[in-house]
Amino acid sequence: MPLTYNPPLRDMHFALHEVLGAVETLQKLPRFADFDRDTCNAILEEAGKFAAEVVAPTNSIGDLQGCTLDKQSHSVKTPDGFRQAYQQYVEAGWPALSCDPAYGGQGLPFVVNQCLYEMLNSANQAWTMYPGLSHGAYEALHAHGSDALKQRYLPRLTSGEWTGTMCLTEPHCGTDLGLLRTKAEPQADGSYLLTGSKIFISAGEHDMAENIVHLVLARLPDAPAGSKGISLFVVPKYLVNDDGSLGARNPIFCTGLEHKMGIHGNATAQLSLEGAVGHLVGQPHKGLAAMFVMMNAARLGVGNQSLGLTEIAYQNALAYAKERLQMRALSGPKAPEQPADPIIVHPDVRHQLLTAKAYAEGGRLLSAYCGVLLDKAHAAEDETERAGAQAELALLTPIVKAFLTDNGLAATIGCQQVFGGHGYIRETGMEQLVRDARINLIYEGTNAVQALDLLGRKVLGDGGKALTQFGRKIAAWGAEHADNPKMAEFLLPLQDLGERLTEVTQAIGARAQRNPDEVGVAAVDYLRIAGHLTFGWLWARAAQTALQAIADGRDDPLYPAKIETARFYFARLLPEVETPLKRLQAHANTILKTSHTLA
Amino acid sequence: MPLTYNPPLRDMHFALHEVLGAVETLQKLPRFADFDRDTCNAILEEAGKFAAEVVAPTNSIGDLQGCTLDKQSHSVKTPDGFRQAYQQYVEAGWPALSCDPAYGGQGLPFVVNQCLYEMLNSANQAWTMYPGLSHGAYEALHAHGSDALKQRYLPRLTSGEWTGTMCLTEPHCGTDLGLLRTKAEPQADGSYLLTGSKIFISAGEHDMAENIVHLVLARLPDAPAGSKGISLFVVPKYLVNDDGSLGARNPIFCTGLEHKMGIHGNATAQLSLEGAVGHLVGQPHKGLAAMFVMMNAARLGVGNQSLGLTEIAYQNALAYAKERLQMRALSGPKAPEQPADPIIVHPDVRHQLLTAKAYAEGGRLLSAYCGVLLDKAHAAEDETERAGAQAELALLTPIVKAFLTDNGLAATIGCQQVFGGHGYIRETGMEQLVRDARINLIYEGTNAVQALDLLGRKVLGDGGKALTQFGRKIAAWGAEHADNPKMAEFLLPLQDLGERLTEVTQAIGARAQRNPDEVGVAAVDYLRIAGHLTFGWLWARAAQTALQAIADGRDDPLYPAKIETARFYFARLLPEVETPLKRLQAHANTILKTSHTLA
Repeated sequence: MPLTYNPPLRDMHFALHEVLGAVETLQKLPRFADFDRDTCNAILEEAGKFAAEVVAPTNSIGDLQGCTLDKQSHSVKTPDGFRQAYQQYVEAGWPALSCDPAYGGQGLPFVVNQCLYEMLNSANQAWTMYPGLSHGAYEALHAHGSDALKQRYLPRLTSGEWTGTMCLTEPHCGTDLGLLRTKAEPQADGSYLLTGSKIFISAGEHDMAENIVHLVLARLPDAPAGSKGISLFVVPKYLVNDDGSLGARNPIFCTGLEHKMGIHGNATAQLSLEGAVGHLVGQPHKGLAAMFVMMNAARLGVGNQSLGLTEIAYQNALAYAKERLQMRALSGPKAPEQPADPIIVHPDVRHQLLTAKAYAEGGRLLSAYCGVLLDKAHAAEDETERAGAQAELALLTPIVKAFLTDNGLAATIGCQQVFGGHGYIRETGMEQLVRDARINLIYEGTNAVQALDLLGRKVLGDGGKALTQFGRKIAAWGAEHADNPKMAEFLLPLQDLGERLTEVTQAIGARAQRNPDEVGVAAVDYLRIAGHLTFGWLWARAAQTALQAIADGRDDPLYPAKIETARFYFARLLPEVETPLKRLQAHANTILKTSHTLA
Repeated sequence: MPLTYNPPLRDMHFALHEVLGAVETLQKLPRFADFDRDTCNAILEEAGKFAAEVVAPTNSIGDLQGCTLDKQSHSVKTPDGFRQAYQQYVEAGWPALSCDPAYGGQGLPFVVNQCLYEMLNSANQAWTMYPGLSHGAYEALHAHGSDALKQRYLPRLTSGEWTGTMCLTEPHCGTDLGLLRTKAEPQADGSYLLTGSKIFISAGEHDMAENIVHLVLARLPDAPAGSKGISLFVVPKYLVNDDGSLGARNPIFCTGLEHKMGIHGNATAQLSLEGAVGHLVGQPHKGLAAMFVMMNAARLGVGNQSLGLTEIAYQNALAYAKERLQMRALSGPKAPEQPADPIIVHPDVRHQLLTAKAYAEGGRLLSAYCGVLLDKAHAAEDETERAGAQAELALLTPIVKAFLTDNGLAATIGCQQVFGGHGYIRETGMEQLVRDARINLIYEGTNAVQALDLLGRKVLGDGGKALTQFGRKIAAWGAEHADNPKMAEFLLPLQDLGERLTEVTQAIGARAQRNPDEVGVAAVDYLRIAGHLTFGWLWARAAQTALQAIADGRDDPLYPAKIETARFYFARLLPEVETPLKRLQAHANTILKTSHTLA
């Protein structure tokens, strides 16, 4: 029984067109003036087919086989079918979707690319990381590379002929990049020779493309200590001649692959740089800033990974719950003609399914909302509009990363639980989803790091300005619908939560002035609350859209379903905030002053 | 870097001797009159050595190799070292620890066996399931078998020469055993021939012992339909001659092994019964009741499995957090002589560690408390005392199973998170703990089934009598310490939670009278709250014991550590009840009336 997958096209239309009016917003940006709903829908339909028909069949085999390294040749073999699926991906032009037409891209909005990626992630997260990392490398080079570097690398990354990586982590440093040791020695010709060891490099070596464009953080000889002395380099697996043909093998070698809990199909490489030739990207010592272009897009991408896993976990658990017969409903048989009722009658099974559905559909709204913000931040003509979109996106990025990945782990575990013992065995595919989902809480900055980013930098760092702005947006939207009595059940708890978050923010801000560690004590709880405020707003918008559609006489089972799911969300998931809100009242010393316990 | 493990002997002493006064309680039972603290401690010390030195080294290899089936001979090979460790286990006499001296057992209290098992589970849960299932089979036969069956099987189960299993699940039925189809045909000689298929049989086939004693649920030809027509049979792998020697191979064959998320070292067998000879255990059609003896002990055992995993996850995460250098504390460097601070300075890391510690030590208290209850339920002379202990144990069993396994999954995930990316790779051993911990929420009745058992059967089923009794015990204990001002921080929230649980119980009871599905809607949330009430009481007792020890001038770093951990528990884990309490206020229709959403 492999997992089944039906691309959630109808729900994407609902999110993009009906709730967010994404296409209409994008059309106002000159770059996307010709973009329309039909184009959007046609692309999504093809993308869904590609994900379901070409990529999904590789998922289980990828998990089973993993990648293998030939230590002699430093070459890595990906699982059966990965290479072929990637060739089809390149041939169909998918890598170019949202890339710059100047380098062969199709110039479509980022948000469309994000929908493509959601579906690819549902189909096979490990596989999707290969093009995903490439796109990250593309973004960083596009934003910070010299014209020469762009001309050399971007067309091939755009076409997908070459893939990319981001090489940050070293054995002794993950979060703390200021500790990194890889060295870059300047050469007479303006290039650099890089020496050092990198670990945990996703898609770091493979047989899917003819070249790999590594973006590597390293230190120049005169670099200041710490994070202010880090520079970014492009280090190709094969050197590139001036005519664009491939030259010599650059000594950046895969020396080992990690054996991981999940995402087995992705090669997590240890890389040894043995005097590898690189070129500087951006300014010396400003590598972290350049890399953060990539990191922020990657963080949205990680949230999107968990969204994809949540969706496919939900679809399969729902199908199983309708088929599996076990016990009777407590209120009496619901399928008396059968030897037992389908387990979907049992309230806890429904709770697990509704949770996954609310997380998937809410996550889709959040992901699409941020996709549009990213498009605005890049393509709006007005600088203030760009800056506004950028500020809102900066606030929401750690929420997308941490909230959606926490939800994704909970949802895949809950959907696995629906399968009972059958969920624990490989055959059903559910346990792989949990193992794959687990990494998303860790990489691209652990969820605790996201929480510190949100509370310390994005909220308290600007004196609450961005948060206040976002809160006003929510309040203004609420005011628009305040006279609709049917919206009260959604608007009142949303308003209440907004007020509580404001109070809590002020309280933490005051405490943090006395002791900066208070930020660390509060951050994870704070992000969970902020995530629910964001989700609550989007679910209220979904409910309002559905109520309006019904009032307009539109007959589609999606609308009553949306209202039910919104009600479930407000009644049974939003209350998750009660625990962190209570915890934020506790004294920080219950964590900080525990030296006897943690002796 | 394999996992390290230090048997938590000091904390066991604290739980057993200082908080619970377990030995003194047991001494009052004639069967254990000679049992004393020195004996207890000496056994625990040896048990800890065995777990750490003999069993722990098999854990990682067991995960990597798993079990292999030779389909020709139906034989299963366990991972390297499993058989040898088991031989040492048998030679040292560990299987006999709490068995009946009438069959060669050592007659020690069950609670001591439970401490042994906690340590074995820390060392290797998959391995420990082999003796664990044997002990369950021993208990069921001891309680329900005829004298002849007992004479035949119990001595060899007691010695560990033979192992046991419980064969319940079939492909179409797990929770709903009423659906099972395996048939038992009576023979002229009083035996039965069994035919059918079983799946998910833990320790169902292996090479560790010369015989396997399967306890099998099946239907007699005249059996009523459903769960009232199920009988229990003993079906040995090899028939046993009257002189105790092994006879012919009984046709109960392993036809497949499951590939699972975790516990790879345990053989999860598909068994085909092809006219296998069995003998009836207990009364015809009363098999479920007989099996429930085993199930209830097994449920305590599953909680104990997660306790073991929580402990070892904590120990290793703590060690890593002290060594791993990454970033500076927000309040300024704590290890200025190093390039970065150890990550234990970061509040979220501390939160994860303290959570695991509070769950481990609280779980140890709960497990020991229930172990003593089980000993009382079996060995008290006074029938009322036995019945009282049995009723309290029945109430607490689903809490032990579900609360400790939920905690265990959360704690192993949290401790894995402390390792960052290093927690996601096999090398550190942390991800195995998560995969192993995951099964504990599923088998021996899913945690949702436990919740229904608690709320439907144990609480509402007797009109709240057992719960009220338990609540009085907590209140009486609280009253004893109410005049100690240092206890207020623990007693007040405990009292508050007790009152809220009482209110909630009444409210659900009233709603359930109108609609029985309300029980299913409320059950999982309810168990979580009841679990915290139980944990809160035990943590308050731990704090009281530690405060008293300090007041008595006893100088041991354990005492201030206990007070810190208790404070952390009350400030940051007990507030978990806020969410389910809020959720219980929501209308059941937000789950029940969701047919559009779950279409």
